[in-house]
Amino acid sequence: MENKYVAGVDIGGTNTAYGIVNARGDILYRGNIKTKNYPVLNDYVSAVSEGLLTIIDQAGGKKKIKGIGIGAPDGNYFNGCIEYAMNLPWKGIVPLAGLIHDKVGEIPVSLTNDANAAAIGEMTYGAARGMKDFIVITLGTGVGSGIVVNGQLVYGHDGFAGELGHVIIKRKNGRLCGCGRSGCLETYTSATGVARTAREYLSARNESSLLRDLDPDEITSKDVFDAAMKGDKIALEIFKFTGNMLGEAFANFIAFSSPEAIILFGGLTKAGDLLMNPIKESMERNTLKIFQGKTQLLFSQLPESDAAILGASALGWEAK
Amino acid sequence: MENKYVAGVDIGGTNTAYGIVNARGDILYRGNIKTKNYPVLNDYVSAVSEGLLTIIDQAGGKKKIKGIGIGAPDGNYFNGCIEYAMNLPWKGIVPLAGLIHDKVGEIPVSLTNDANAAAIGEMTYGAARGMKDFIVITLGTGVGSGIVVNGQLVYGHDGFAGELGHVIIKRKNGRLCGCGRSGCLETYTSATGVARTAREYLSARNESSLLRDLDPDEITSKDVFDAAMKGDKIALEIFKFTGNMLGEAFANFIAFSSPEAIILFGGLTKAGDLLMNPIKESMERNTLKIFQGKTQLLFSQLPESDAAILGASALGWEAK
Repeated sequence: MENKYVAGVDIGGTNTAYGIVNARGDILYRGNIKTKNYPVLNDYVSAVSEGLLTIIDQAGGKKKIKGIGIGAPDGNYFNGCIEYAMNLPWKGIVPLAGLIHDKVGEIPVSLTNDANAAAIGEMTYGAARGMKDFIVITLGTGVGSGIVVNGQLVYGHDGFAGELGHVIIKRKNGRLCGCGRSGCLETYTSATGVARTAREYLSARNESSLLRDLDPDEITSKDVFDAAMKGDKIALEIFKFTGNMLGEAFANFIAFSSPEAIILFGGLTKAGDLLMNPIKESMERNTLKIFQGKTQLLFSQLPESDAAILGASALGWEAK
Repeated sequence: MENKYVAGVDIGGTNTAYGIVNARGDILYRGNIKTKNYPVLNDYVSAVSEGLLTIIDQAGGKKKIKGIGIGAPDGNYFNGCIEYAMNLPWKGIVPLAGLIHDKVGEIPVSLTNDANAAAIGEMTYGAARGMKDFIVITLGTGVGSGIVVNGQLVYGHDGFAGELGHVIIKRKNGRLCGCGRSGCLETYTSATGVARTAREYLSARNESSLLRDLDPDEITSKDVFDAAMKGDKIALEIFKFTGNMLGEAFANFIAFSSPEAIILFGGLTKAGDLLMNPIKESMERNTLKIFQGKTQLLFSQLPESDAAILGASALGWEAK
């Protein structure tokens, strides 16, 4: 049988991981290289393409592969380019999909950003199977999003839609964001934002907290989670504050696209109910009546270690 | 030639207007009835259907009509029902598309809410011709929206997506909204919201203003416009405040769907540049860098008196 697999490539600042995936979402063959070891773009393209050709051979050759999907920071689906990515070695506009297609040959190649790849991954293999309207929110170092409407990714007229981490949620005295503006959702609700909240709470209050044993500059969202699990009051409040902000933001997103579900993805979701419960409470309280109780809040159902490759690979099924 | 026309029905609390429209957006035949005169639903359905059959005959008969589109408050595209409309005589869930189809016969009937009809109207005959990603914002007694992504109306999983008038734009001490929550965009930027701002400004300040000659409870957005056109300082500031809020909200909408244009529709747009200039300035200032300068701000290009019928009729082209 031809075209029974796809290939997925997940490009991160540190690692690039790739794999061959079947229709059920199993990764059959895989490989990876260190992104950082390839400051020269052509060397990188050669290394990824060779790695892909190796696992494609293992899977039975190019005829078996329907498409190659690539997930990359600042990836633009419309032109297959990575555009001005801050955390990658190559500057400016990088036509990566085209370059990899030239090296690998025959198989169509599609590229999009990581959060969109996560959304297609959930739709193809995960929590959004069968859904036509949903939003994936990635809660990691930053906050990203992949929005699906009528069964299609929302790319917008320029390919960059779905920057919900940069919705301004606090108008007055909002936290300065890496984007140059203030009050963006990600300054409060990313893993980094949670650590920032911890530092703010610790310096503004006098209560004892397990977090006071740590160097404030080194506190991570993991530390806050560990403290909260031990019942630490300030840590619990930090999750409540974070969840409340997310719930307020989600209520506004629901007024936009009325999704069947909002799916949480990424490192911060390890906090589980500590995060989910305050989001739910705040989302329902802030949601317009006609939408109340209609939008499910779910965690990603992609296995964490493989989620990025799976998401990227899912794009391969529709590549052409 | 068959199927060369569509019929549009615009249902308002006071009037119901209907017409036969050609592919260029000309209304060839028209009629109207007083919605309020028909408290009994069946009488209303009979009257509208008879009116439609009369103009359909004038246009050459049912074979000439591709579809009937209906725009109505709280109209749900998915089931053709008007659901719990506050300003219509019939309560609960009213399966209007089906009832009209039963009376008129043969021709397919589609129904959606007024703002969605406006968006389809702009796409078919107006400012959004050729666009696949845009948002129509209706600024009238309330604030509504019709969102188009990938050339399709965004209905969401329940048919009610696109309630951008009920995005919460002010979290603290926001104005009470008719929806029961506080701080909704429409409490500030509808025609009613502008009048509310006028009352707030007049009572909080001492400066002289042409608006002080009026009974505060009777002030309308038209009065504010007239005063602003005469250079009244408070009136000008009211438009600046309103435009600023809209620009902030639009910047967040852009982060969601990255539309090619945001199109303003409805009574308040008569304010022209008084409203448009502060929106533009605020929208660009609040927009994430990658989107800056990309989204056009436009006024509706549908002739005002016919806009509602045209919008509803546009739905008729895709009815089936």
